[in-house]
Amino acid sequence: MSAQTLPSPEHFFQLTNAYQGTAALKAAVELEIFTAVAEGNRTAQAIAERCGASERGVRILCDYLVVTGLLTKDAAGYGLTQDSAVFLDRRSPAYMGGSLEFLLAPSLTSNFEDLAGVVRRGGTLSEGGGTVSVENPLWVKFARAMAPMAAPIAGALPPLVGAKPEGKFKVLDIAAGHGLYGLAFARHNPEAEVVALDWPGVLEVAKENAERMGAAERYLTIEGDAFTAEYGEGYDVILLTNFLHHFDPQTCEQLLRKVRAALAPEGAALTLEFVPNEDRVTPPVSAAFSLMMLAGTNGGDAYTYPELERMFRNAGFSSSEAHQLPASPQQAIVSRK
Amino acid sequence: MSAQTLPSPEHFFQLTNAYQGTAALKAAVELEIFTAVAEGNRTAQAIAERCGASERGVRILCDYLVVTGLLTKDAAGYGLTQDSAVFLDRRSPAYMGGSLEFLLAPSLTSNFEDLAGVVRRGGTLSEGGGTVSVENPLWVKFARAMAPMAAPIAGALPPLVGAKPEGKFKVLDIAAGHGLYGLAFARHNPEAEVVALDWPGVLEVAKENAERMGAAERYLTIEGDAFTAEYGEGYDVILLTNFLHHFDPQTCEQLLRKVRAALAPEGAALTLEFVPNEDRVTPPVSAAFSLMMLAGTNGGDAYTYPELERMFRNAGFSSSEAHQLPASPQQAIVSRK
Repeated sequence: MSAQTLPSPEHFFQLTNAYQGTAALKAAVELEIFTAVAEGNRTAQAIAERCGASERGVRILCDYLVVTGLLTKDAAGYGLTQDSAVFLDRRSPAYMGGSLEFLLAPSLTSNFEDLAGVVRRGGTLSEGGGTVSVENPLWVKFARAMAPMAAPIAGALPPLVGAKPEGKFKVLDIAAGHGLYGLAFARHNPEAEVVALDWPGVLEVAKENAERMGAAERYLTIEGDAFTAEYGEGYDVILLTNFLHHFDPQTCEQLLRKVRAALAPEGAALTLEFVPNEDRVTPPVSAAFSLMMLAGTNGGDAYTYPELERMFRNAGFSSSEAHQLPASPQQAIVSRK
Repeated sequence: MSAQTLPSPEHFFQLTNAYQGTAALKAAVELEIFTAVAEGNRTAQAIAERCGASERGVRILCDYLVVTGLLTKDAAGYGLTQDSAVFLDRRSPAYMGGSLEFLLAPSLTSNFEDLAGVVRRGGTLSEGGGTVSVENPLWVKFARAMAPMAAPIAGALPPLVGAKPEGKFKVLDIAAGHGLYGLAFARHNPEAEVVALDWPGVLEVAKENAERMGAAERYLTIEGDAFTAEYGEGYDVILLTNFLHHFDPQTCEQLLRKVRAALAPEGAALTLEFVPNEDRVTPPVSAAFSLMMLAGTNGGDAYTYPELERMFRNAGFSSSEAHQLPASPQQAIVSRK
């Protein structure tokens, strides 16, 4: 019903300057602007005082955050949106500000410096295969920074595979990172044993988290590369969280055959992914994730569900099933041996 | 009428990764993706061939451009939106791709590298006052890159001040840049004389444009700084296009007193600006422009109309009047001596 509108360069300007939105969010998190507003500081002057910044700078930054939808503004001053109250107030249990340490790590953002070159080549220009290069220290940063983002999702995973709440249960957590997804099974079942696989530096972070959760004695580790390490066998669940998107379908299938061989007869692989619809352009966060994989890997992608289902089928899995996760743009796929 | 929605980190993710939108637009312009689609190439394969790029890279980039609203996608393949057909097809007279040379010049984008530091300080961290530093070569880039963006607006200016189409008419174009705004008066009135003021390197570009328009013999120049140069007097119009936003109100008023003194009794100052509403958070492009001035200058801003009106009044002008410009997020303000 909307009328035909005249051409306008507005959208072009907005996308040209979009990088300023990233910078504004980063600055606001660094200065604790959202926390200051949550504490009741509503004017530029009060926020500036609380954050040790200039009033002019805070006024302009906060107005910009209103434009981008992370703050509100009315006669009484600035306020938080529902999302910024939950995710950007440092005192909130779901605080995500720390994830910027990973999400905006120079080794990730620099992949976009010559995106035309990336598109010409069809893959990352960064050496050693980009983000999946051997013992890339980026993943230690990931393990430290992304744990708060995983915490609310992790608890939803054990029920998805019907994990029993007691009795012997073996979980393999491939590219475990912070380890929280595997540890959700240790919490769900006090007898469950979790084997975490990752680079040694990353496993230190996972082991700290296991210790903190009182599960250290049920937490084993395998140092190394998921493609070459020995997994052992008889696992009830093998986790593949945010891992397949780094590789091309053939490489994924090769890995999935190895995963399937390590599962117990009734076992399941549990995959966590950004899964765009088959049009590849919705929903926005999952569809846009593909560009990150283009810029940062040799052959990775945000795979659609039919593509993932096919990989598992080709690797010998009998069935797959997708689940939307609450409070997350990601999906979980349960694939039965 | 919209239902209360659950908190979601989606918006946080989108703003965190917003810099990728800038990179995608820049890559697409460099690779001439929009031009390729305009020429009838609709599949990733055809576009890749036309642009000398990989099919995988083009497919992922084009899907991303659909997500951000610069391309469409249907069963037949990719297509242009109304805006991208007008502004991003290299063969279009309103093509704006070249403006990225200025808008994404490293000396502008680098102002956002430590935005928290900028907000703490309340002004640019770059030396010499940022973008307005003496003979900053950025403005030569501006003059070359931004001319196509000015062309459609320039013609709308002479009628706004009731410029007569013949007879003696004197225009002073302060910080003339490409010179197109002043040259619009030379085109409107074949007897009009235009004096352009800017740094010497920038004036070379303006003189080229005057030559191209056949107005070289009516085009005079003053090399130097708008605050210290001798303007002469008796001008019918003095242009202040995209200039006041670089300075604090006091500095603007000082300049405006000088401008007023150089006007003929019936003369007018014509200001072109990003003018946010009094809430300072709408409309988005003009409101967001303020952050650019925070990061790039010592005391500049996107001023509201009441603020601009007050500056002119304080400088002795008798009246001001705002006009929305067609096909532009900017406004023109006509201030009578």
